[in-house]
Amino acid sequence: MDTKEIQPTSLELMGQSARDASRMLVKCSVDKRNQALIGIAESLELYKDEILSENSRDYELGQENGLSDASLDRLLLTEERIEAIAKDVRNISNLPDPLSGTFDVRELPNGLTIGKRRVPLGVIGTIYESRPNVTVDISALCLKSGNACIMRGGSEAAHSNRVFSRIIRRAISTKGLPLDSVQLIENQDRSLVEKMLRMNHYIDLLIPRGGAEFIRLVVEGANMPVVTGGVGVCHIYIDKAADIHKAVEITFNAKVQRPTVCNALDALLVHYSIAPMFLPAIAKRWADYDVEMHCDKRAMSIIGPGKTDVVKPASEDDWGKEFLSLTAAVKIVDSIDESLEHITEHGGHSDAIITEDYGSAMRFLDEVDSAVVYVNASTRFTDGAEFGLGAEVGISTQKLHARGPMGLKELTSYKWIVCGDGQTRS
Amino acid sequence: MDTKEIQPTSLELMGQSARDASRMLVKCSVDKRNQALIGIAESLELYKDEILSENSRDYELGQENGLSDASLDRLLLTEERIEAIAKDVRNISNLPDPLSGTFDVRELPNGLTIGKRRVPLGVIGTIYESRPNVTVDISALCLKSGNACIMRGGSEAAHSNRVFSRIIRRAISTKGLPLDSVQLIENQDRSLVEKMLRMNHYIDLLIPRGGAEFIRLVVEGANMPVVTGGVGVCHIYIDKAADIHKAVEITFNAKVQRPTVCNALDALLVHYSIAPMFLPAIAKRWADYDVEMHCDKRAMSIIGPGKTDVVKPASEDDWGKEFLSLTAAVKIVDSIDESLEHITEHGGHSDAIITEDYGSAMRFLDEVDSAVVYVNASTRFTDGAEFGLGAEVGISTQKLHARGPMGLKELTSYKWIVCGDGQTRS
Repeated sequence: MDTKEIQPTSLELMGQSARDASRMLVKCSVDKRNQALIGIAESLELYKDEILSENSRDYELGQENGLSDASLDRLLLTEERIEAIAKDVRNISNLPDPLSGTFDVRELPNGLTIGKRRVPLGVIGTIYESRPNVTVDISALCLKSGNACIMRGGSEAAHSNRVFSRIIRRAISTKGLPLDSVQLIENQDRSLVEKMLRMNHYIDLLIPRGGAEFIRLVVEGANMPVVTGGVGVCHIYIDKAADIHKAVEITFNAKVQRPTVCNALDALLVHYSIAPMFLPAIAKRWADYDVEMHCDKRAMSIIGPGKTDVVKPASEDDWGKEFLSLTAAVKIVDSIDESLEHITEHGGHSDAIITEDYGSAMRFLDEVDSAVVYVNASTRFTDGAEFGLGAEVGISTQKLHARGPMGLKELTSYKWIVCGDGQTRS
Repeated sequence: MDTKEIQPTSLELMGQSARDASRMLVKCSVDKRNQALIGIAESLELYKDEILSENSRDYELGQENGLSDASLDRLLLTEERIEAIAKDVRNISNLPDPLSGTFDVRELPNGLTIGKRRVPLGVIGTIYESRPNVTVDISALCLKSGNACIMRGGSEAAHSNRVFSRIIRRAISTKGLPLDSVQLIENQDRSLVEKMLRMNHYIDLLIPRGGAEFIRLVVEGANMPVVTGGVGVCHIYIDKAADIHKAVEITFNAKVQRPTVCNALDALLVHYSIAPMFLPAIAKRWADYDVEMHCDKRAMSIIGPGKTDVVKPASEDDWGKEFLSLTAAVKIVDSIDESLEHITEHGGHSDAIITEDYGSAMRFLDEVDSAVVYVNASTRFTDGAEFGLGAEVGISTQKLHARGPMGLKELTSYKWIVCGDGQTRS
């Protein structure tokens, strides 16, 4: 593949180009946007060998630099993974157009017809690490929703991100979409990130993906709106009226099914009256996976310290900690009130109650103010695909604009349209 | 009135109290919130004399400090104005509860029932100038939507704001709402504003009200989400197919009906073919109000420079300028395309086309990406009350979270609620 193009040296230029591209994109029909997505999917398959070859350079550098096995695995592309990425892009092309239709239409007493229409946000900036498929995912989601994007990937995936971005740019310009709808900051100079954070004159929304500390820095430094997410502590509260079987299966699933993600269980709160039955049962189920349990004193008195390798005393730090591994904090509570206070203090992402008591379930739904609140289900369901959104931009843990799983609609804004026949204000 | 209370000296303490109050507020029924609003309205009437006396101190200081007549008028409270403020609070108590109901409810294939519920944002911060009624408006809107608020008013209205806040706090605590749901930063030290901008651990949303430069500083400095608004340039494009009578009446109304507000007309774009008929007609209508017209060369050749006192040549600065006075920039364009380009470059608040041509109207609605886009109506309608929202928090000119007139709903977020029967993810 031989895509000759000039990489803009200045972020300012990239911002201008993105702004211009976004103004052209908004005029492109949904058919044209979908055709471009299909073009991307086809190109990914066509240039599979080039992608694999660039990816192997990243992989080898990663090995030399001593990346962990987990990081190397996140970095690695295979023929199957590329096919899966292309399939995801095709799926996005099949989703409904997030920009279609006029809604909330009303006629006012003075005869004005008023309504709202969805519009793209404009230019989406994103800063992310390791997994190179994010480059394709974000591009596809932005294009589908009529947004231009400026992406800054991690240096460990620099070659893979570059080949992806070039393939995407070529594919979309062939289909008549503006080339600079998709731009990757290839220069790995760290100062560019700081500059990017101050570009609110070009970037309408910034989506950082990474660890909690990185996201905190972005929030502190950015002058444009930021949607934060992907970080958060998940709780399950086992009520005194819980069904033990459901409680064990849900708690097991929430911790073990995929422990490295943000919707996995972090802290387990157990009503004291059910703890003597529940705790040994979950400890037994978790033991097969060597789940480490950081227990408060009362939980310890029930299940510890027999197996000292997995049952450990909890430290103060364990409450409000996102483990992202096969570890859970365990605490005995005296009442639903204590669980609600604990979750108010430490929760915010996905929190569940396991109970057969209607009043407790309703109280939990009413009083827990997290992005997603569950009754009798695993916190692992917090996901755009599981919620039927089709595609997921991320999981927002903030309250403004979007909360919980974000789909294509959450990459849009609206404008009011008002049609009259000469009305003036008196 | 003798409300003894300790003014927290530390913003940090105010933040903590606001956070605690917001967690109690969310549990208050809509009846209790409405009763508190009625209590506020009654207290405003009861303590009218105290309010007038405190306000006269501000007014006298304002006179001593040489405030303009317009500023003094914004500051002034009269018996009638206080009654109007109380009436507004009663109106808010009669609006539907923005927190009621569950929406977007669906059953997923795995049997999970999923839906969304409105929740308050939490703690709203606001920084504003002059008009003391804002203290009451913001308090009432926040309380109705279950939010606590921390307000920082301008020093010129310090006495009026203080008496309002004390009356409100007393009224709501009598009705069982947490006292610190409403807090006013009484200390006028400017450094407190900077501290407030960095309090994202307590303030969920910041709403600055003031001039463009002030809002820019807030956006640059704040680490929490900011909803900006109340600033923006409004255009009217007179298409070649405009009905001259409608064009003149709408243009006249948009400039003259209340020139000091953000939805008043700033720049008038006129198709060259209709300009010889339209421009003299609007100039004649505007002349009664001494509207100053800053004309480009072609407009000048049609209507100027006969009356040199009101028709002046436009400077480059006039395009994209918010006049907030009886002045309008006037430009002749060659096509609807040129008007669209001009509005894309300089618009964003409220922009209107005057035309009888269906295709032009549709193109304008499609391609102008402003908070509100009009066909054949005055830009002055951009207002929460006019749009039927009942109350207005402000007019947002940003794209995230809320755009255009913001009502009570825009002071809320949502949480997902998911009810299951033991579902786990496979």
